[in-house]
Amino acid sequence: MRACRVIPSGIYGHQGPAEGCYVPIEAFPLYSQKAEGTYLWDLDGNKFIDYMCAYGPNILGYHDPDVDAAAAKQRAISDCTTLPNTKMIDFAELLVETVACADWAFFAKNGNDVTTLAIMAARAHTHRKKIVFFKGYYHGVSPWTQKIDYAGVIEEDVMHNIYVEWNNFTQLEEVFEKYKGEIAAVIGQPYMHGNFMDNILPAEGFWQFVRKKCTEEGTVLVVDDVRAGFRLDLAGSDHYFGFEADMICFCKALANGYNVSALCGKEFMKNAISSMSYTGSYWMSAVPFAAGIACIEKMKKLDLPKILIEKGTKLKNGLEEAAKEFSFDLHVTGVPSLFYLRIADDPSLKLHQEWIAECVKRGVFFTNHHNHFINYALSDEDIAETVEIAREAFSVVRDRHPL
Amino acid sequence: MRACRVIPSGIYGHQGPAEGCYVPIEAFPLYSQKAEGTYLWDLDGNKFIDYMCAYGPNILGYHDPDVDAAAAKQRAISDCTTLPNTKMIDFAELLVETVACADWAFFAKNGNDVTTLAIMAARAHTHRKKIVFFKGYYHGVSPWTQKIDYAGVIEEDVMHNIYVEWNNFTQLEEVFEKYKGEIAAVIGQPYMHGNFMDNILPAEGFWQFVRKKCTEEGTVLVVDDVRAGFRLDLAGSDHYFGFEADMICFCKALANGYNVSALCGKEFMKNAISSMSYTGSYWMSAVPFAAGIACIEKMKKLDLPKILIEKGTKLKNGLEEAAKEFSFDLHVTGVPSLFYLRIADDPSLKLHQEWIAECVKRGVFFTNHHNHFINYALSDEDIAETVEIAREAFSVVRDRHPL
Repeated sequence: MRACRVIPSGIYGHQGPAEGCYVPIEAFPLYSQKAEGTYLWDLDGNKFIDYMCAYGPNILGYHDPDVDAAAAKQRAISDCTTLPNTKMIDFAELLVETVACADWAFFAKNGNDVTTLAIMAARAHTHRKKIVFFKGYYHGVSPWTQKIDYAGVIEEDVMHNIYVEWNNFTQLEEVFEKYKGEIAAVIGQPYMHGNFMDNILPAEGFWQFVRKKCTEEGTVLVVDDVRAGFRLDLAGSDHYFGFEADMICFCKALANGYNVSALCGKEFMKNAISSMSYTGSYWMSAVPFAAGIACIEKMKKLDLPKILIEKGTKLKNGLEEAAKEFSFDLHVTGVPSLFYLRIADDPSLKLHQEWIAECVKRGVFFTNHHNHFINYALSDEDIAETVEIAREAFSVVRDRHPL
Repeated sequence: MRACRVIPSGIYGHQGPAEGCYVPIEAFPLYSQKAEGTYLWDLDGNKFIDYMCAYGPNILGYHDPDVDAAAAKQRAISDCTTLPNTKMIDFAELLVETVACADWAFFAKNGNDVTTLAIMAARAHTHRKKIVFFKGYYHGVSPWTQKIDYAGVIEEDVMHNIYVEWNNFTQLEEVFEKYKGEIAAVIGQPYMHGNFMDNILPAEGFWQFVRKKCTEEGTVLVVDDVRAGFRLDLAGSDHYFGFEADMICFCKALANGYNVSALCGKEFMKNAISSMSYTGSYWMSAVPFAAGIACIEKMKKLDLPKILIEKGTKLKNGLEEAAKEFSFDLHVTGVPSLFYLRIADDPSLKLHQEWIAECVKRGVFFTNHHNHFINYALSDEDIAETVEIAREAFSVVRDRHPL
């Protein structure tokens, strides 16, 4: 393969060997030809209903006309220049207006840039070192957030990391007791939407308990909304679950695929952020700011999360019904706009992976062990077609593995 | 100011308070209105000949028609999608063809993403922890590359960092002796183009000495070409100085401002890179790949670094002559396509800062204590106008501070 010669492992990220098995290796294509709305075409011209949405960024549909027009207009004026365009201020103001916990905004390029900034700012603010994570988390690729057994990570990178179980009140209480006065930050995704497991919503009162402990102990509460952001609540996924973060991280859906991320936070963290030496070559590019403004404005006008959750619920119901018809125990977990699929009958994962592969072969782009994403361009007809294809795929797998 | 309400410190990066004093605070504007070719306009409509080039990305001129056309063509097809477009392979092949030490390429968004990947890969490959830096370096904003006294940095982030003086053969020799078998990587910019100091080219044989020591000790040699890349040599700045890096980091000028960075390296590092868990939301966006391909192809066709060095040399000669006329000892250091300015008469920096401010007021955008950048759109007329303005500025400062 051409790619293998010039790119380490031919491809990287979710399709790469380090994170293998998210996607059905035999059934699915590695490269794409074009994209439009909710569809993706592979190099052979096969069309897919794409439920990965570029792993999140595609929230309004590929080539959303309003976002693309705003971006093109800004591009004709300026993009990456020596001094930022005032679109940066407009975008910050819009986020402050939209996001519940936001008194300010800081822009970068990756989710990882802003999760790292949040952790550094929490350490600067508290003069403490320890960070609490929820097991099953993903907060990017910087050494501090990787696992000790991952390639290139040394023990010093992660020696102040404390790992607690999601929804475990007692463990969190114990950790705050044991490391009293030492915990700089708790960082968590709004709910457990990790890979290789059913996604788990917060238990009743869990986030409120976390919030209370952080406030009492002077610990900074960081919500990583990179993946879930704007699919649950435009005011932030913390707002959706009825609490308020001290800082919240956005990327992906922030500008419908234009390359920008944002850290937002409360007034009391503004000085810590201002004191940091933290910047990047392209962080003031104006085109992604213009795209982000158009994206947020359109999402607000549509009250988009409500629509995406409705679409997701319709799909969830259809898939569960189709599974039942062929006696499969399909778990559709997480918030429906960000659903995770698992056939629970078979711990070997084989039945599940076969079913996903049969869906992909028929034009529904699901992945094996990663959550999926709903976008606004996904129509009722697309959902009906998806359910019908899923039904066929269940039928094929059941024929192969009769009860 | 509106920006201060919603953005920590109103602005960040080189204009922000953490890195204050690179730019002449009273004289210069904070935000821009538009950009074209080699020019930038502030919010009041004042036009500047922009020698910062977006701190590097602008290498062909803002709105280069060839790069913009290639990007627009790709945007109509796809940008950030679930599966990468084959433009990623084309871009990797072009870099392998162009860059002397490149057997492969890996793409990300920031220079910082690829310097961090290089360091992690060096640690993964060598199973060692220590990293050698040259004092005065800048390799991004990740904790491992920041200074211990910077906000948000903890001692564990930098405890394996070893700092040696640039061009100091003895110190490097001693460090390799003292930490025998422990040094994972040496990372350096192609020459010392740090801030607040005259830039320093490599001493005769210095890089060859570094290369020899790294090879002997099994240490990975990483060149950070984020700032200098493509302004010295399209084959890499290591090639310009007559040696070969094991890995080289590009960003900034790689795609004339479109948001992409790249790590290239030798075959023996490919497995280490493949083994890492390292990705980002937008890292496979196709538009910056198309822009990067068009940018590199145009730079190759023009043999661009030669042209930029010629333009820079013309400017350097003009500025030195103008300084002499008013009895200022102006140092123009570094490679002329990436020149650093310093009036050496006055250790308080006051004369220098006054002169820069007078240039900015008259429409030449210089900064106080950061290197400058030449781009292809800068014409002979622009250079002549710059020299004339610099002359006036020298005259004003000399009137104010007579000999």
